[in-house]
Amino acid sequence: MGNADERQALAERSAKALFEPDRASQSLGMRITAISPGACSVVMTVRPDMCNGHGICHGGMIFTLADSAFAFACNSGGEPTVAAGASIDFLAPGRAGDELTATAQELWRGGRSGLYEITVTNQHGDRLAFFRGRSHRLGARSQEPREQP
Amino acid sequence: MGNADERQALAERSAKALFEPDRASQSLGMRITAISPGACSVVMTVRPDMCNGHGICHGGMIFTLADSAFAFACNSGGEPTVAAGASIDFLAPGRAGDELTATAQELWRGGRSGLYEITVTNQHGDRLAFFRGRSHRLGARSQEPREQP
Amino acid sequence: MGNADERQALAERSAKALFEPDRASQSLGMRITAISPGACSVVMTVRPDMCNGHGICHGGMIFTLADSAFAFACNSGGEPTVAAGASIDFLAPGRAGDELTATAQELWRGGRSGLYEITVTNQHGDRLAFFRGRSHRLGARSQEPREQP
Amino acid sequence: MGNADERQALAERSAKALFEPDRASQSLGMRITAISPGACSVVMTVRPDMCNGHGICHGGMIFTLADSAFAFACNSGGEPTVAAGASIDFLAPGRAGDELTATAQELWRGGRSGLYEITVTNQHGDRLAFFRGRSHRLGARSQEPREQP
Repeated sequence: MGNADERQALAERSAKALFEPDRASQSLGMRITAISPGACSVVMTVRPDMCNGHGICHGGMIFTLADSAFAFACNSGGEPTVAAGASIDFLAPGRAGDELTATAQELWRGGRSGLYEITVTNQHGDRLAFFRGRSHRLGARSQEPREQP
Repeated sequence: MGNADERQALAERSAKALFEPDRASQSLGMRITAISPGACSVVMTVRPDMCNGHGICHGGMIFTLADSAFAFACNSGGEPTVAAGASIDFLAPGRAGDELTATAQELWRGGRSGLYEITVTNQHGDRLAFFRGRSHRLGARSQEPREQP
Repeated sequence: MGNADERQALAERSAKALFEPDRASQSLGMRITAISPGACSVVMTVRPDMCNGHGICHGGMIFTLADSAFAFACNSGGEPTVAAGASIDFLAPGRAGDELTATAQELWRGGRSGLYEITVTNQHGDRLAFFRGRSHRLGARSQEPREQP
Repeated sequence: MGNADERQALAERSAKALFEPDRASQSLGMRITAISPGACSVVMTVRPDMCNGHGICHGGMIFTLADSAFAFACNSGGEPTVAAGASIDFLAPGRAGDELTATAQELWRGGRSGLYEITVTNQHGDRLAFFRGRSHRLGARSQEPREQP
């Protein structure tokens, strides 16, 4: 484990190492605005090419933002951890130009599994979605990752 | 309702009307390969900029593909219908160059609600993800859509 | 709406009216230990006949406790509200003799829908399960309830 | 693995060994009506003491029936397997006197994880609920089971 400072430094290194080569998150303009052990915030501005014909943000883009925040949070301990699954509830739409923030927080960890809650809000503080992610830590003898956040 | 031919024609018109202005699905290179009342298949080739640092497809991109197939299936009756929520289980990773197919099928409809199952497979027929979507049909007096698939 | 005192009184009346004829919750020995607008706590002692062959509490009994707490919380406004669905994550087992507490809290309400988080803990404060419930408020012209919590 | 006859015999032995000491399923009057590798059907008659004040079946009782069918299906290979989580969608209510059938089918297995779909119907063939279960196979060095179906 190490002390709080070491764990914070590890979380920062782990997020940097995971984000830099993450072409999907990069191409969507995501920025990590906060990272700590088991927690992360990621910001993304909704572009017109993230919207559907109704001029509002595609639900998959909102999920992707939340999934990236989940990935950085569940990998903040430095051990390769993947998403086993997730559920999302859509509360309100996002619109082109909105600045969305996904805030991830660890709820529980046991064995190789973990549960994380991610809330997506807009620049007005309106909640757009709740996302619950289930993580799976890969082990030495682990088979092929299922989905690498 | 109308007869089978009319419902098939309506499904085709509805999917076309929803897909053409869908910049998110278009920009990800999605193609609708099959559409019928309550069902739809959408294909997407995994590009390098859909991948994360591990060289595999970001889970959010797999979700987005499934969410688009869900949208076309649940709107195939011509009545504006939105996603209320969804859950996804990740079974295996996708890789750059893979051709992914999301196949959506209506499981149930009651009142304004519907449930749809979407399976994402790759060009080898491997199942990468199961997606379960909950739809909400908008009505005349309906408030702002929550998420427009 | 009314003021805080009125809403608290309404929550208490609504829980009483829903719990008294609830033979399922009564026969499982549940007791409501706290009720307020949008929130509720229900306690249940695990009996041997709630356990499976491993001597631990059947997951369905843990779900049922959480579902009852959810029902009292989402009906605390006095308008008939039913469960549309729920998801549960099991974290640790319950055992015969354990006193389990399900604590329900409203997360969001919009239109006729609501989302509630219910946490089940034991007498040691260990978390046994997380439960997320989706509620549907019945209206004047509503069709047959789907599931009456 | 062994051949089909051996796997069928193993499924029958495993279900019998799991059901006989299962006081929860027994006390609810459940009967296993079909068992095979990865699949199971369980029947339960809704009693008045399984109902709430509206005279309809408590959602937790419907979940419990589905969870038992899930347990017998995911343990049909003879290796101790527990529920990690589940989600349920309620479609229609059950009533006292109804004979409910939960039919479980394995959808996928990988590593120690599995996914199962369980459908609950009544004596008229009406679908009351869809249940999706996630299983976790216990291993030699496994920690305490989370929830023993």
